[in-house]
Amino acid sequence: MSRPISFLSDFGLADEFVGVVHGVLATLAPDSRVIDVTHGIGRGDVRGGALALLRAVPYLPEGVALAVVDPGVGTDRRAIVAETDWGWFVGPDNGILSPAVAAVGGAHRVVSIENPEARIPSPGRTFEGRDVFAPAAGLLAGDEMRFEDLGPVLDPESLRPLLLPITESQDGGLLAAAWWVDRFGNVQTNADPEDLVLMGLAVGDEVEVWIGSRARTVRWVETYGGAPQGHLVVHVDSHGLMALAVVGGSASEELGIEGERPLRFSRPGPTSL
Amino acid sequence: MSRPISFLSDFGLADEFVGVVHGVLATLAPDSRVIDVTHGIGRGDVRGGALALLRAVPYLPEGVALAVVDPGVGTDRRAIVAETDWGWFVGPDNGILSPAVAAVGGAHRVVSIENPEARIPSPGRTFEGRDVFAPAAGLLAGDEMRFEDLGPVLDPESLRPLLLPITESQDGGLLAAAWWVDRFGNVQTNADPEDLVLMGLAVGDEVEVWIGSRARTVRWVETYGGAPQGHLVVHVDSHGLMALAVVGGSASEELGIEGERPLRFSRPGPTSL
Amino acid sequence: MSRPISFLSDFGLADEFVGVVHGVLATLAPDSRVIDVTHGIGRGDVRGGALALLRAVPYLPEGVALAVVDPGVGTDRRAIVAETDWGWFVGPDNGILSPAVAAVGGAHRVVSIENPEARIPSPGRTFEGRDVFAPAAGLLAGDEMRFEDLGPVLDPESLRPLLLPITESQDGGLLAAAWWVDRFGNVQTNADPEDLVLMGLAVGDEVEVWIGSRARTVRWVETYGGAPQGHLVVHVDSHGLMALAVVGGSASEELGIEGERPLRFSRPGPTSL
Repeated sequence: MSRPISFLSDFGLADEFVGVVHGVLATLAPDSRVIDVTHGIGRGDVRGGALALLRAVPYLPEGVALAVVDPGVGTDRRAIVAETDWGWFVGPDNGILSPAVAAVGGAHRVVSIENPEARIPSPGRTFEGRDVFAPAAGLLAGDEMRFEDLGPVLDPESLRPLLLPITESQDGGLLAAAWWVDRFGNVQTNADPEDLVLMGLAVGDEVEVWIGSRARTVRWVETYGGAPQGHLVVHVDSHGLMALAVVGGSASEELGIEGERPLRFSRPGPTSL
Repeated sequence: MSRPISFLSDFGLADEFVGVVHGVLATLAPDSRVIDVTHGIGRGDVRGGALALLRAVPYLPEGVALAVVDPGVGTDRRAIVAETDWGWFVGPDNGILSPAVAAVGGAHRVVSIENPEARIPSPGRTFEGRDVFAPAAGLLAGDEMRFEDLGPVLDPESLRPLLLPITESQDGGLLAAAWWVDRFGNVQTNADPEDLVLMGLAVGDEVEVWIGSRARTVRWVETYGGAPQGHLVVHVDSHGLMALAVVGGSASEELGIEGERPLRFSRPGPTSL
Repeated sequence: MSRPISFLSDFGLADEFVGVVHGVLATLAPDSRVIDVTHGIGRGDVRGGALALLRAVPYLPEGVALAVVDPGVGTDRRAIVAETDWGWFVGPDNGILSPAVAAVGGAHRVVSIENPEARIPSPGRTFEGRDVFAPAAGLLAGDEMRFEDLGPVLDPESLRPLLLPITESQDGGLLAAAWWVDRFGNVQTNADPEDLVLMGLAVGDEVEVWIGSRARTVRWVETYGGAPQGHLVVHVDSHGLMALAVVGGSASEELGIEGERPLRFSRPGPTSL
């Protein structure tokens, strides 16, 4: 039996890092398909990697997820595998796995990868993606080693969490956060459409969006087709979250938002302040 | 039976978009090979995507082509599959598929992807690459749904065309267009070598190339080895079209050509003006 | 029988070049897995490609290596396949294959790819990655043509070598070279830790690193965890070579090293000059 492996990292594609990990996986699990989720996570951006894995996991075939954004390589952070209903999540215990593991129902068991037979001996300790994480993923995907043989069992509760911003109602508005800007310049927030509905807003309404001390009044549209080219709109995006977009343009540029940033949704008019 | 899927988009590799589409394909067609033609098409550049697919299709294994450059996502542009001798072409009906479909002999049948069972339910309508196009491609590749069950049949003639520049003889010269600059700075034109032969030109001759009001006299060489380093030359490229190149350098930089642009070929000397 | 193919190039991912080569490989060797080692080698950087292949090959599954960095395409440089204990190496005879071939024990036999049946007919001679190298790799991987049928046998000794810098002891110090900067800004040198041990240095010691006329005294640490954030250190990297790194930062930026560059290791103190 061979399981698909979904691989995410901050390795980029300029060097041979990703190819070398594929080489290790192909050697240990020659019949496993490997899906490159993305290797474009910012260098050391554990949070960005965790959010990308969280967004992707509902669409990945069950099996093994290998996620390596590992600024703590060479320190005593643990190298772990979390066993879930979805399959196995392999990576450093720095929070990168936690949101996705929680999204699929949590970890039943967690091990620390310490069995020397599950590691590639290496002169240095700087490329554990190749020497520790890829072998564990490949051995599990190829059914060459049992989960419980990878190393000592850890308390699943000890998995390092990743703190994500939460929304909060305040004075009839909603404190929220922009937390992802995609390639097209769309700005995803952490706000659920339900939050806005509870404020009495609905598709078609105007919504006030405060970023710092500046407010923009935008239409809540159902699709990009619901507004003219160049208009800033708010809509429910493909992950079910409120997002800001410019039809045929970039909300990121329009709003000057490039990363995580608090914002506030409110109803327009005198009641909004 | 499982068919290979060739996938082209403007998604880039910074986000997890491409990986998520791979996840959907792997779930629906676990035995299909997926070839990434390129995901580096400029954002929303339907024309660039259509030309890349056109250049690639003679070398792709027959099966399913999935091409998603979709600035009209969320509008009422149709989501289609065209059935051809080569296989199926899946994408938005915005012209991206048309040149490649024509190159393999045209479409026998076209459907609009509307069967809800061929779509992944989604809260938003901004990622139809994932929710509409990938499922159709995966279902066809994995033989899980018949072409005619994807949705209502359309008139193949109604497929939206992509207008490409054509060459034209004029005063003994040839009006043509630069229409692609590759990574190496080579500038491909739409001129067929036959067009130049009809003007009395042959390999080894000097050719005058007019860009705007400026002319450059360049040698028509057979290969890059036919001219010294740094020389601007014209030659038949690997797609059989006249192209401008600088040996060991960049014709794009040398000529200041970065995208589509009219130009004129003529014979050198007093007769060329 | 189908063998895995490991593919490295300077094609980048912006165009469809890599996808087209995948198409050719999938057509000729439909059951072969293709691993993209990297396509981010600098344009025409044979040396960078050769070093990346050298670093990767110990981790790639045995089979076929296809390496195309080919600034001499269209000249009379030979297109070759080298047969080794590891498998076959396919590429231009410009030095790109030589270090990896040597690392796996050298070539037993070498052929020049000249059999017209092993080439895709093409109007131009600018994309031999597609027309010459990919077909040879695909035919060998898919067992569709015997090695000796690809073309005339060459003297393995005639393979074009790649000259790599070597280290040299001098006045109690070690002349060495920085020769690779990775995505994370780590600077790999060609120095073996043994070279430093012979100078009386050991893990934990301070080492003087001279770049031009400027010296930096840095700690030789075992792992990144062995020094505080932001510190420049020297350590044995994941390939067993001495490398310079900034913990949580970029040694490349800190030292202004972007490519190959001589440097000198010595013991700190008055004896080092």
